Amino acid sequence: MGYGEIDQLAINTIRTLAVDATFKANSGHPGAPMGMAPVAHILFNKFMTFNPKNPDYINRDRFVLSNGHGCMLQYALLHLFGYDLPLDQLKHFRQVDSITPGHPESHDTPGVEVTTGPLGQGFSNAVGLAVAQAKSAAEFNKPGFNLFTNYTYMFFGDGCAMEGIASEAASTAGHLQLGNLIAVYDDNHISIDGDTKCAFTEDVLKRFEAYGWHTQWVKEGDTDLDGIEAALKKAREVTDKPSVIKLTTTIGFGSKLQGTGGVHGNPLKEDDCKQVKQKFGFDPEKTFVVPQQVYDAYHQTAAKGAAAEQEWNQLFDKYGQQHKAEHADLKRRLSGLLPEGWQKALPTYKPTDKAVASRKLSESVLEAIHSVVPELISGSADLTGSNNTRWKDAVDFQPPNLGIGDYSGRYMRYGVREHAMAGMMNGISAYGTLIPAGGTFLNFVSYAAGSVRLSSLSHQRVIYIATHDSIGLGEDGPTHQPIETLAHFRALPNMMVWRPADGNETSAAYYVALTSKSTPSIFALTRQNLPQLEGSTIEHAIKGGYVALEDKDADLTLVSTGSEVSLCLESVKVLKDNHNIKTRVVSLPCVEVFDSQSKDYRLSVIPDGIPTMSVEVMSTLGWEKYSHEQFGLNRFGASGPYKDVYKKFEFTPEGIAKRGLATVNFYKDVKPLRSPVNRAFTNLI
Amino acid sequence: MGYGEIDQLAINTIRTLAVDATFKANSGHPGAPMGMAPVAHILFNKFMTFNPKNPDYINRDRFVLSNGHGCMLQYALLHLFGYDLPLDQLKHFRQVDSITPGHPESHDTPGVEVTTGPLGQGFSNAVGLAVAQAKSAAEFNKPGFNLFTNYTYMFFGDGCAMEGIASEAASTAGHLQLGNLIAVYDDNHISIDGDTKCAFTEDVLKRFEAYGWHTQWVKEGDTDLDGIEAALKKAREVTDKPSVIKLTTTIGFGSKLQGTGGVHGNPLKEDDCKQVKQKFGFDPEKTFVVPQQVYDAYHQTAAKGAAAEQEWNQLFDKYGQQHKAEHADLKRRLSGLLPEGWQKALPTYKPTDKAVASRKLSESVLEAIHSVVPELISGSADLTGSNNTRWKDAVDFQPPNLGIGDYSGRYMRYGVREHAMAGMMNGISAYGTLIPAGGTFLNFVSYAAGSVRLSSLSHQRVIYIATHDSIGLGEDGPTHQPIETLAHFRALPNMMVWRPADGNETSAAYYVALTSKSTPSIFALTRQNLPQLEGSTIEHAIKGGYVALEDKDADLTLVSTGSEVSLCLESVKVLKDNHNIKTRVVSLPCVEVFDSQSKDYRLSVIPDGIPTMSVEVMSTLGWEKYSHEQFGLNRFGASGPYKDVYKKFEFTPEGIAKRGLATVNFYKDVKPLRSPVNRAFTNLI
Repeated sequence: MGYGEIDQLAINTIRTLAVDATFKANSGHPGAPMGMAPVAHILFNKFMTFNPKNPDYINRDRFVLSNGHGCMLQYALLHLFGYDLPLDQLKHFRQVDSITPGHPESHDTPGVEVTTGPLGQGFSNAVGLAVAQAKSAAEFNKPGFNLFTNYTYMFFGDGCAMEGIASEAASTAGHLQLGNLIAVYDDNHISIDGDTKCAFTEDVLKRFEAYGWHTQWVKEGDTDLDGIEAALKKAREVTDKPSVIKLTTTIGFGSKLQGTGGVHGNPLKEDDCKQVKQKFGFDPEKTFVVPQQVYDAYHQTAAKGAAAEQEWNQLFDKYGQQHKAEHADLKRRLSGLLPEGWQKALPTYKPTDKAVASRKLSESVLEAIHSVVPELISGSADLTGSNNTRWKDAVDFQPPNLGIGDYSGRYMRYGVREHAMAGMMNGISAYGTLIPAGGTFLNFVSYAAGSVRLSSLSHQRVIYIATHDSIGLGEDGPTHQPIETLAHFRALPNMMVWRPADGNETSAAYYVALTSKSTPSIFALTRQNLPQLEGSTIEHAIKGGYVALEDKDADLTLVSTGSEVSLCLESVKVLKDNHNIKTRVVSLPCVEVFDSQSKDYRLSVIPDGIPTMSVEVMSTLGWEKYSHEQFGLNRFGASGPYKDVYKKFEFTPEGIAKRGLATVNFYKDVKPLRSPVNRAFTNLI
Repeated sequence: MGYGEIDQLAINTIRTLAVDATFKANSGHPGAPMGMAPVAHILFNKFMTFNPKNPDYINRDRFVLSNGHGCMLQYALLHLFGYDLPLDQLKHFRQVDSITPGHPESHDTPGVEVTTGPLGQGFSNAVGLAVAQAKSAAEFNKPGFNLFTNYTYMFFGDGCAMEGIASEAASTAGHLQLGNLIAVYDDNHISIDGDTKCAFTEDVLKRFEAYGWHTQWVKEGDTDLDGIEAALKKAREVTDKPSVIKLTTTIGFGSKLQGTGGVHGNPLKEDDCKQVKQKFGFDPEKTFVVPQQVYDAYHQTAAKGAAAEQEWNQLFDKYGQQHKAEHADLKRRLSGLLPEGWQKALPTYKPTDKAVASRKLSESVLEAIHSVVPELISGSADLTGSNNTRWKDAVDFQPPNLGIGDYSGRYMRYGVREHAMAGMMNGISAYGTLIPAGGTFLNFVSYAAGSVRLSSLSHQRVIYIATHDSIGLGEDGPTHQPIETLAHFRALPNMMVWRPADGNETSAAYYVALTSKSTPSIFALTRQNLPQLEGSTIEHAIKGGYVALEDKDADLTLVSTGSEVSLCLESVKVLKDNHNIKTRVVSLPCVEVFDSQSKDYRLSVIPDGIPTMSVEVMSTLGWEKYSHEQFGLNRFGASGPYKDVYKKFEFTPEGIAKRGLATVNFYKDVKPLRSPVNRAFTNLI
């Protein structure tokens, strides 16, 4: 309350910075920053606690701009409050190698919590951040030691409100009663196609009520600063439900085109820039102007945040005296390192051990390591029993009043919401105290592709437990059998796609995934049983590829993954007996990790001089990189018992041998026959 | 009203068939069929009009089982009503080469309208079917000639209700006021993880009210046949809103495990099978029993459907006398063929024509052909101005009372709902009178991956207009720049991925897409301008790949797509001047179509004897199939003006030349140097 000139000045500074930056870049979205400047000012200056000098302060309030195209709002705030984002970066908005890209990227820009822009993602990230907060509070807070008290604030627009992922996440947040989550819905009636009337006439607040959210409406979002403050205050007081505030604003407030699609995704015209500045009492001839009073006021707020962190550090030290183990645990987690020696808990297998489905092998890993890796939080998109994602004595993460778990729980029931699960996992990972793993069928990781991509781009340590990984799932049929999925995710930068062939390889996948701090992983796991292989060890498999069966006089190398490695090993005898071909077999559980090995090592695995054939029961696309010839499935699968399906498509020792023979014959005359690993140029970029 | 023994008998026949088929297959989902048998019986027997002898009768009521795992419900109904699905097929449920796969597939099974199972898909398909009905009615119905009067009925469960795509589609259907759409929500409180209480506690009907749906609740869905009938009747009467009936049922009704997760996805135990039959008055020792009275009753209903079709045919003949042009047009559309000579309208270009972005070239095609291809219905997921998907005088498909279009409109405003757009397009295509095209950024086609996959699997003629196809979009940055996307969709069977290099190639893409009756297409189109190429013609490009620049003495072949083809052509001079390398250039706008050409042709384009290097500004994965070496982008892009971004990653004539030189040198000693097109075995399957 008691808003005055300085507040208006700060708000208009944000607006004019957005106008100038988009104009200079000749690109970008001035409309949302101009419309949301008032609520952003009040939120950052009156409600949020953060320390620009240490963006990682763990109990900071989180801010997520789900309508990430409005990022000049966020960049302006970060600059004004004193984050390491100098004015020069605003002048290089949307330029190569700046830290002010077209949409906010958490990996590059201090103070950006999560990578947003693809609509709806930030919404689900915020739900994940709120989950992580509630979980961390339940785990670490003790009487007198409220270590985790932060809120997660999130802005979203009509675009996010229309996206399915946001609906999924909103329904989940309502179910979970996340009182620490406060969303502001920028109700400006404009999307790229113009008036939202053309496609979006639902009653948004009523929908959120149906999800179990607390709802409010501030009708004069451009000017009613007191109303905005009161709504935010009220939202903080509601602790048993997430809150949404519908804020009716004028997009591009101040522009001659305010309230129209014209200010959504295009810079203002030069005369309009001047007009806006004049209207707001700024010099129309100057650009990137920040009045000193605004810096002063904001730096004062920032100083309060720094003091809050100092206080927190003292509290945390005291906590260490009374709760030694928890203190050490949290400190370690914040470093990103796993507990010393945790990997000793990973199961290992001998060839004589019984055949087990890799989804069950994954369950054994979770069972074995969950107590030594307390930051691991598992879950599934309603396929718990099929994904084998839950260790036996796991407690569900649930609001306590439902009587089926509590907020200290380490098992997430995401519901049939793959996309929100993935987006929430990105948020959970970004919080800083947890490592999320979540399950669905491999085929339905594709539903989550939007978020999976951002796991990679934003360097989140997230694990996708993707079971039922091929036609080997059998009866569910082509609608559920992945063909294109591994090619898709192998083409995604900074993603490890693991397809383990047995128990040791499954343990290796977990080892590499958990120790890779800034790379997500997808584990493609079978429904059907797999034998434990002779040549497989964790040490071999963590190289991404290794020789499972050597033959120094081999005529042929078979490279394969997952369930087909044992098939290849079976085919060795057929190739020898029927065709007099000597064969070596390579297992390549993770091509991305294999690619990171030395060329010498890779050439020792896939050598020059003999032809190589790949075997994998899905699209052959990309296997040309590791083999001369490819045996795969470039069509949809079939519904039936899996052995029948394998037979139909000739994935049998005989079917492999037949193609192996063709391969050997075809390459007899080629000299020199180079390994496919041997290339003219390394990808320089 | 007046339900009696025969009704109960029919209902229980459906239930026991589902029990027997899942038991025999030792796999499948008996619970939903057992719970939904009553409503299915009433709907099919009392309300729906269809002709099992001609499943394509155009004015039939459509039925969509969005909870497709319950497909034994649908298979049982199709069998009982006399579709070409003999009892033997029920006995081969979920077996290889049956037409009763684990989830319903429209391409294989008569009477299955759309391919469902992946949750939420059927929901969006149904909205698309309803759109197509409303559009066809608005277009073809005339006073006295109500040719299109059918309803679309759809069943969905908790799983669908949780999926984002269903939320998107429901919001859209509410906005569009689709009174011809009636959904039954199987409120059985069970999903795979057990009681939906663990993840799904929202008020579903209130949410649908918020979307603008008419809602009803039948509380005794297992037994209240009169209530079910009354609700369906009421739903049909509400013509200005889509309707949802929440039907509280007991999953696995009759089983000892009824009402639990135990009957969701597992066959009943043998003793339970017998117990169920006993309970329903069936011989517990017999399997797959259909009482003759049930056949008789259902065949009587089917006969009414056949009569309705006959009546319709007569009406249509009469229509032909009074509305000759419309009659001929509709008749042609139902054949799936385009109008004679339509392709003459496709724009062609000379090398001297100005440089244009391929998204604009696509717009020119739409502008040129929309009047000669009246079944084309375009749209965008809120990116109309960016996707260039709307011809100038297009009318929006909108409920007339909004004053911004009407149901005869040919332009869809899908909102920011990519996944629902794709699912709706599958439904629109499946209806049989329309060809849908829909736009978004290429990067956000990934949001729709679940539905795109089903476009392919279910052979729908759907066009994805995917603009802003690379780092060439510039300033929006890495969150919006596709890297993995083309590899993903190239790995998807039965999908044509086009990336045209200029105007003639863009016209070729439309030509092949529109004339391929059972294959969907993705057009990857640039934001930036592209020159018109010397060697490009529609005739060349429709082969999927051709020589854009020939040189009989070439040392190197460059293969490329889209925006990089002209770059490759520019690099030819650099390669000659700086490195004395003679280069030929191949344009490969669509690898799937190229793959379907004769080997001779393919070898004439990518010949033996000289090395080939691919150039495409995204993941190189898969390019090994068409080249010895690959120049691409196996990392995320950058935010900046696109020319700066291209330069950063060395996509310049010099950058290409440098790598071309390395390629030529590397392969000098290899004899014979085979074309990558030359393979040891054709993929036999």
